[in-house]
Amino acid sequence: MTKTQQFSLQEYLAEQVKVVDRALDEWVPVETVAPESIHRAMRYSLFAGGKRIRPILAIAAGRAIREDTVGIENAACALELIHTYSLIHDDLPAMDNDDLRRGRPTCHKVFGDALAVLAGDALLTLAFEVLSRLPGVAAERKIRLVEELSRASGTVGGMIAGQVHDIEGERQTPTAMLLESIHRAKTGALLRASVRMGAIYAGASTAELASLSEYGEHAGLAFQIVDDVLDVEESSEALGKTAGKDQAQQKITFPAVYGLERSRQMAEDEREAAHAALALFGDRAGRLRQIADFIVKRKA
Amino acid sequence: MTKTQQFSLQEYLAEQVKVVDRALDEWVPVETVAPESIHRAMRYSLFAGGKRIRPILAIAAGRAIREDTVGIENAACALELIHTYSLIHDDLPAMDNDDLRRGRPTCHKVFGDALAVLAGDALLTLAFEVLSRLPGVAAERKIRLVEELSRASGTVGGMIAGQVHDIEGERQTPTAMLLESIHRAKTGALLRASVRMGAIYAGASTAELASLSEYGEHAGLAFQIVDDVLDVEESSEALGKTAGKDQAQQKITFPAVYGLERSRQMAEDEREAAHAALALFGDRAGRLRQIADFIVKRKA
Repeated sequence: MTKTQQFSLQEYLAEQVKVVDRALDEWVPVETVAPESIHRAMRYSLFAGGKRIRPILAIAAGRAIREDTVGIENAACALELIHTYSLIHDDLPAMDNDDLRRGRPTCHKVFGDALAVLAGDALLTLAFEVLSRLPGVAAERKIRLVEELSRASGTVGGMIAGQVHDIEGERQTPTAMLLESIHRAKTGALLRASVRMGAIYAGASTAELASLSEYGEHAGLAFQIVDDVLDVEESSEALGKTAGKDQAQQKITFPAVYGLERSRQMAEDEREAAHAALALFGDRAGRLRQIADFIVKRKA
Repeated sequence: MTKTQQFSLQEYLAEQVKVVDRALDEWVPVETVAPESIHRAMRYSLFAGGKRIRPILAIAAGRAIREDTVGIENAACALELIHTYSLIHDDLPAMDNDDLRRGRPTCHKVFGDALAVLAGDALLTLAFEVLSRLPGVAAERKIRLVEELSRASGTVGGMIAGQVHDIEGERQTPTAMLLESIHRAKTGALLRASVRMGAIYAGASTAELASLSEYGEHAGLAFQIVDDVLDVEESSEALGKTAGKDQAQQKITFPAVYGLERSRQMAEDEREAAHAALALFGDRAGRLRQIADFIVKRKA
């Protein structure tokens, strides 16, 4: 990436974050709607400076299919709602018991465990409400989005499967196979679904959808590898969450299985594979290529 | 109800429970599918001898609209998945901290808190997957079901709103208004949605849907009043859950606000109002009338 491209990507990402945040703000009831506490808790976790990688992947994928796709940020919101619910529940004392997230006290630290459980449930539920109410989208397409998101978030190869593997993987011997099954489900499924949902929203052909799925898988794997590497390399302050947590909890990570150097090379390989999967799209996939680069180069 | 009618209703309910359980068994991954623990936890709570009131209401409402409605038990499953997730999360130490449910140790007692959080999340997610994959149903209808269920389960007048009110209502002065806002959301919204989803599935007209919504509201209110009364009157053994819990936790209940006798009369009034709302349907609503009677007369 040249300096100019980098600058242009930073601007693009900042712009898209604003678009996504504006849409989220419209979908999530304001804090004055009763019961006020739950909406306050939902918004606290939702508007905590997240990178919005999933919604941005969805938007970029949709625009790669059809440049003039409108309203896609609404569908993209559903992905961020699911992601945020999973973070709230993950941080609970019953789960990872974490006090810090995106540089602030976690939801249950501020609102208590009961409300944090319910805020997670509420964001998860709202994700599907949003998809059911997408303005100007045919029912056929909406229902495909519901199916895509529910499967990617579920227990059969989806996000929840990954969380279970993750919990049960602690204290097990870190093997390459176990590692792969964890990451593929835990973050991979939802990142892949982000790209696919954007493509489905924009009316992708079967061939386009297949290529973008492959891109999503590689970009998703790169994302997880880099996440694991950053947990070792960076400070809690830089990450906005507790660093070094993986090792302390004996999580199965890429650095634990392959070491830091080989992990970095693997992320680079995945980045290249993600690029290769976009051949079909030519110039239309410029943003998707840049996002794959960003995923690997990011520092937090 | 005559003895013969009562017998016929018992048979009908037992039959419908079997139909619903068979459908649930098909939708929920078996315990040999990885990760095995989560599917075991989901099935443990799901197949614990629940009355399946919500799915049965949906089926009966659908058949009141069109006698030959097929496959409606699949849509009805989504309601039981939502109901069961809410019980699992409600029982968590972070929430009501209950050890007994449907006569057995609660999910987190058997599988641990982390897996109980995830099992609840998984059932909630699966509810929407089921609706997105209903066989032989037009996309337009499926998406209406997704919207109906997500709103009824959500934070604006839905089930989660009721749970928040419930938590925050403890230690507040029990007033009639607070009581109404709790029940309308906590159990009322999902019971009303059960009837409405059955009706939508079967292609109800606007007038039919309005009548059934009214029936659902009254039957739902009757259900909650009777639930509160039973919590005072019956033993834990009869209920299969901890009795007398409401008073111990200073919950706002109908007996707490109105006393036992007046609460019983109110349930009876709601039963009659539920019957009255069915005038439009004549003989087609026989089952729905019987179910309203059953809701008021039940002992657990």
